[in-house]
Amino acid sequence: MAEILASRARVHGIASFDGAVIGIVTGGHGALVREDGIDLAAALAQWREHGRFVAEDGRAPMTALEAVRGLDYDVMVELTPLGRPVRGAPAIAHVREALARRRHVVTANKAPLAWAGRELFALARANGVEFLHEATVMDGVPVFNLARHGLRGATVTRIQGILNSTTNAILSALEAGVSFEDALARAQREGYAEADPSDDLEGWDAAVKVCALANVLLDADLRPESVAREGIDGVDAARVAGVLSRDRRLKLVAEAWGRGPSVQARVGLREVPRTDPFALVEGTSSILRLVTDLAGTIVITEEHPDIRVTAYGVISDLLAIGP
Amino acid sequence: MAEILASRARVHGIASFDGAVIGIVTGGHGALVREDGIDLAAALAQWREHGRFVAEDGRAPMTALEAVRGLDYDVMVELTPLGRPVRGAPAIAHVREALARRRHVVTANKAPLAWAGRELFALARANGVEFLHEATVMDGVPVFNLARHGLRGATVTRIQGILNSTTNAILSALEAGVSFEDALARAQREGYAEADPSDDLEGWDAAVKVCALANVLLDADLRPESVAREGIDGVDAARVAGVLSRDRRLKLVAEAWGRGPSVQARVGLREVPRTDPFALVEGTSSILRLVTDLAGTIVITEEHPDIRVTAYGVISDLLAIGP
Repeated sequence: MAEILASRARVHGIASFDGAVIGIVTGGHGALVREDGIDLAAALAQWREHGRFVAEDGRAPMTALEAVRGLDYDVMVELTPLGRPVRGAPAIAHVREALARRRHVVTANKAPLAWAGRELFALARANGVEFLHEATVMDGVPVFNLARHGLRGATVTRIQGILNSTTNAILSALEAGVSFEDALARAQREGYAEADPSDDLEGWDAAVKVCALANVLLDADLRPESVAREGIDGVDAARVAGVLSRDRRLKLVAEAWGRGPSVQARVGLREVPRTDPFALVEGTSSILRLVTDLAGTIVITEEHPDIRVTAYGVISDLLAIGP
Repeated sequence: MAEILASRARVHGIASFDGAVIGIVTGGHGALVREDGIDLAAALAQWREHGRFVAEDGRAPMTALEAVRGLDYDVMVELTPLGRPVRGAPAIAHVREALARRRHVVTANKAPLAWAGRELFALARANGVEFLHEATVMDGVPVFNLARHGLRGATVTRIQGILNSTTNAILSALEAGVSFEDALARAQREGYAEADPSDDLEGWDAAVKVCALANVLLDADLRPESVAREGIDGVDAARVAGVLSRDRRLKLVAEAWGRGPSVQARVGLREVPRTDPFALVEGTSSILRLVTDLAGTIVITEEHPDIRVTAYGVISDLLAIGP
């Protein structure tokens, strides 16, 4: 993201973010804090050379929570990893603290939406600040902005998506005759599967994403633990081939339907017919179908994104908050 | 649309539009004007019974232009037919008059965007009013709102779509062995082809739509006459079968690329591979691909809309303007 932020020509509608970032605090890779503004190009160079941030002024590094509580900022950007086994810690605490201090929050971490969405939106409203989260699902594809600004007066009644790249790539590879292990190793090599891929393989990642979507688009108050969940761990070449022989493809589909307290969600293997755009989703692409009462059925596909697109999701939220 | 407007329960976020509509003026089907608000349910019943509007108070009917110039309204909703041979008349005059009077405009007619977009946006800005047009392309699917609110800081560099239902349905029917004439007759029977289908068959409808999109999303100043245009008039069963035999489908694709004054556009027959979601678009469905610099490539599909979805596009614009 710093690459994009540091380059003023790439982001239109703003002169530059230079001098606008006053703190970058990581879990295990140091921290940079300068109340008069960090030089982003220099910070990026330091990161590339050392793999960590070292404050020039010798100031003692602070923890993220200390930074959220103590620094004088307008917007807190939350970019910590998911933290699924700890139900979204520490991201939720960071967001809660910042909103309570009447600071805007932009998150690329879906945990706050999935485990505490309703609480945090209420907190943002009560404090008159924004809590934006476009990068949490489908990277920079504006699914939340589409619903917020494009579906006024309409109600989303069902959502359905292929939202996890690792499982989708493995299912495609099984169709092509590659073994589960080789397919997983390749996904890890190409950077979209984690070193510990169990959250992907067991359907947790998709469950957290469908929760995040449902808690916003269906006004639900779901938790990932209450999503009926199936992963791809038990799938083998024979099963995938059987589905193919029926001119269908096996896909891990996340779904939620209903409204408010009645919303239910599930993540499961589905045999998708070839006439459904879900059958065409490959690699890091993803797809989301929104069924609505008045605006018909809308399908949004993200085609072959790279890592920049996630960064863009955060930037688009920052631009929505404004200068 | 009156059906939806008259039913308060169907549109959330507003109590009702009852009493908010003060004039309905048609070309050849009469006019209703009541400065204290029209009873929409009664107007709808009258329309269903007589196929025209008759003012109860005996007030002389007025023309649309007289209404635009003379009535005291907040928003003018433009719903006249395209008027392609007359380059968007009379819609453009209606929009121009209303904007010059500092009234908001919502249009479902794409002509004002396609033949006078730049002029009318400048006029709206100068007069501090909104000129909204979500229903003009892909019905109520929020393609313009997506770009306006969801792609902040990103630039759309190319658009590509299947935007005309009549030609798409005829191409599908040819694949299935139906004759051109029978396929056209069916499209007319089902209501999505006009009695005079030449604007569809010759690619004009798609050219006007891609102009409307390009003039907003690519900041172009194109006119439909300058779009390189191919229709489906020359297509026969043999050609369609040949494409199918190469595992591709023949589709009428509208495209535009570039930025500002350098934008070019074309409408033409393309052999689309089966792996492209464009190959799955059937019936009244439509699809649009947006290639961007920072937000990746986003594909939006509208699946099997009915006429209500166009009405919804207008309503969503009215809700965006607010009470």
